[in-house]
Amino acid sequence: MNMLVDGEWRTDAGEYTDDDGSFQRQETTFRGRIRDDPGAEYQPEAGRYHLYVSYACPWAHRTLVTRALKGLEDAISASVVDPYRDEDGWQFTPEKDGCTPDHVHGADYLRELYVRADPDATCRVTVPVLWDTETDSIVNNESAEIMRMLDTEFDDVASRDVDLYPEGYRDEVDRIIDEIYEPINNGVYRAGFATEQAPYDEAVDDLFSALDHWDEVLADQRYLAGDRLTEADVAMFTTLVRFDNVYHTHFMCNVRYVREYENLWPYLRELYQTPGIAETVNMDHIKEHYYTTHPDVNPSRIVARGPDLAFDAPHDRDDLPGGPPSDLATAASADD
Amino acid sequence: MNMLVDGEWRTDAGEYTDDDGSFQRQETTFRGRIRDDPGAEYQPEAGRYHLYVSYACPWAHRTLVTRALKGLEDAISASVVDPYRDEDGWQFTPEKDGCTPDHVHGADYLRELYVRADPDATCRVTVPVLWDTETDSIVNNESAEIMRMLDTEFDDVASRDVDLYPEGYRDEVDRIIDEIYEPINNGVYRAGFATEQAPYDEAVDDLFSALDHWDEVLADQRYLAGDRLTEADVAMFTTLVRFDNVYHTHFMCNVRYVREYENLWPYLRELYQTPGIAETVNMDHIKEHYYTTHPDVNPSRIVARGPDLAFDAPHDRDDLPGGPPSDLATAASADD
Repeated sequence: MNMLVDGEWRTDAGEYTDDDGSFQRQETTFRGRIRDDPGAEYQPEAGRYHLYVSYACPWAHRTLVTRALKGLEDAISASVVDPYRDEDGWQFTPEKDGCTPDHVHGADYLRELYVRADPDATCRVTVPVLWDTETDSIVNNESAEIMRMLDTEFDDVASRDVDLYPEGYRDEVDRIIDEIYEPINNGVYRAGFATEQAPYDEAVDDLFSALDHWDEVLADQRYLAGDRLTEADVAMFTTLVRFDNVYHTHFMCNVRYVREYENLWPYLRELYQTPGIAETVNMDHIKEHYYTTHPDVNPSRIVARGPDLAFDAPHDRDDLPGGPPSDLATAASADD
Repeated sequence: MNMLVDGEWRTDAGEYTDDDGSFQRQETTFRGRIRDDPGAEYQPEAGRYHLYVSYACPWAHRTLVTRALKGLEDAISASVVDPYRDEDGWQFTPEKDGCTPDHVHGADYLRELYVRADPDATCRVTVPVLWDTETDSIVNNESAEIMRMLDTEFDDVASRDVDLYPEGYRDEVDRIIDEIYEPINNGVYRAGFATEQAPYDEAVDDLFSALDHWDEVLADQRYLAGDRLTEADVAMFTTLVRFDNVYHTHFMCNVRYVREYENLWPYLRELYQTPGIAETVNMDHIKEHYYTTHPDVNPSRIVARGPDLAFDAPHDRDDLPGGPPSDLATAASADD
């Protein structure tokens, strides 16, 4: 595993897995909070913050989706790294399709930003990174926390009136984000990076039990938390949209495709068709990243073909109560 | 690659792939012919011949299916190797579920039989092997030829009146066996063992074009050659039955499952339910073999879960003209 140790880039720093073959995720270290509060260190301002993302990464993708749903593209700029990650970690290759330079510092590698934020940083160098141009440092690199900040603290600069953490739903949203993390969002990684049969089997059992459960829930309910689109759906979306083309085969989560689920698949399509979301999905980056970046899983680095997914097919979920926020519904009509 | 060179077992004998990354299959070397003819060297006799097979291998599986359909189990005995194949090649591990000893010679490794047949053998050590106890040597190790001999030369000792190469269909059967070999039977291997993107892409294109084609054919036609069950169906069956659990994920043939095909899937189920065939399918051996034997493809050697396939679900193909040979139809009724 590659990581920063005391600000130095190390390519021999441990393994992805525990002794028992389970994949373990390391703790993040930058946990600043933007607050819409005059006394806060980080206050929401248009043009002040910058997102570093990979289109490939489901965690980074949560922040891109939230930014798009809220209409924060003009207020919060973004840089996109190369989907292929070698021993140097995430890097900027602006000449490559879909990638950008580091718009803030012109760095070659994402790790440079981590060292700039903390010269003694000891951590994995991950996306997303929310950067503050005023303090010239990292505010936060934990995807759920960035998603929450973009969602709840930037209403004054957002171009759409969209609330993904509405009053009356908050406990449920928090509960669901937490509930789906281990079996689903991280479950695909536990399956894919397992090096022993038993942890793989456990991960696959947990994953498909959870998918089966949510498929049932979504038979009568438009979104995970009920009739409102929330952050919980964003968290589910970035895993589901990668599932059939990547996790299913590359991570051997192959009991069934998401497209075979009676309700998860239309649900996924409706999310995909929600204004702003499709533009955040770069399937080429997603496929290139996974298949080429993990030689321990796929030594040939060949990108599997995968199914053609009709994300644009009618979702037929309008009969269920609820629907997207009115600002997004308006945008959808304008698209027609 | 492991192979015999001048009768010596060598573990460094070349690679699975050509310089361009395409997988290449080596020529077989034992091509004797059993003929129902008083002047022939090898004449069909009950108790004289022995089959060495792996339940995992689709080529060996063709001979097991033919033997079962004809009712040749008593006339031609069989030994089953361990599905896990390491650098020593196929071996006999009678203590393992579904495996047997070498019933003829008590060998530990299949290669011993090859050297016994030819002390200077230079070849890969593959299954199936059709052994002649009278000359104490290999008659043939080419699956299509063994299938043909079992089918056409053993009617006097077969317990069922089943002809899989019927007059009037022979050109078509030969044509189809040849036509499906490269894109389908070998196509999954070309995809799975490719080490470069281009040959993989070509293999996947060829494979799914061919599957799409046969799915259409089977909409109006009960079997590949028309209304009669033939060797062409046996050759197709052993690839299709492995597809969703192995080729789909392990060999990244993941455009779709066979179970998603409108006609191939019921066709596969009907074949599976044809008397004698289900007993030749050992899915545990199939899955163990592929996932654990190719570390270049699956370094973790974890066996992917794969879908549950309802091979026993009604196939609903009785409305199409034709059906299994009457001896097999009778057996099917007796099973009900």
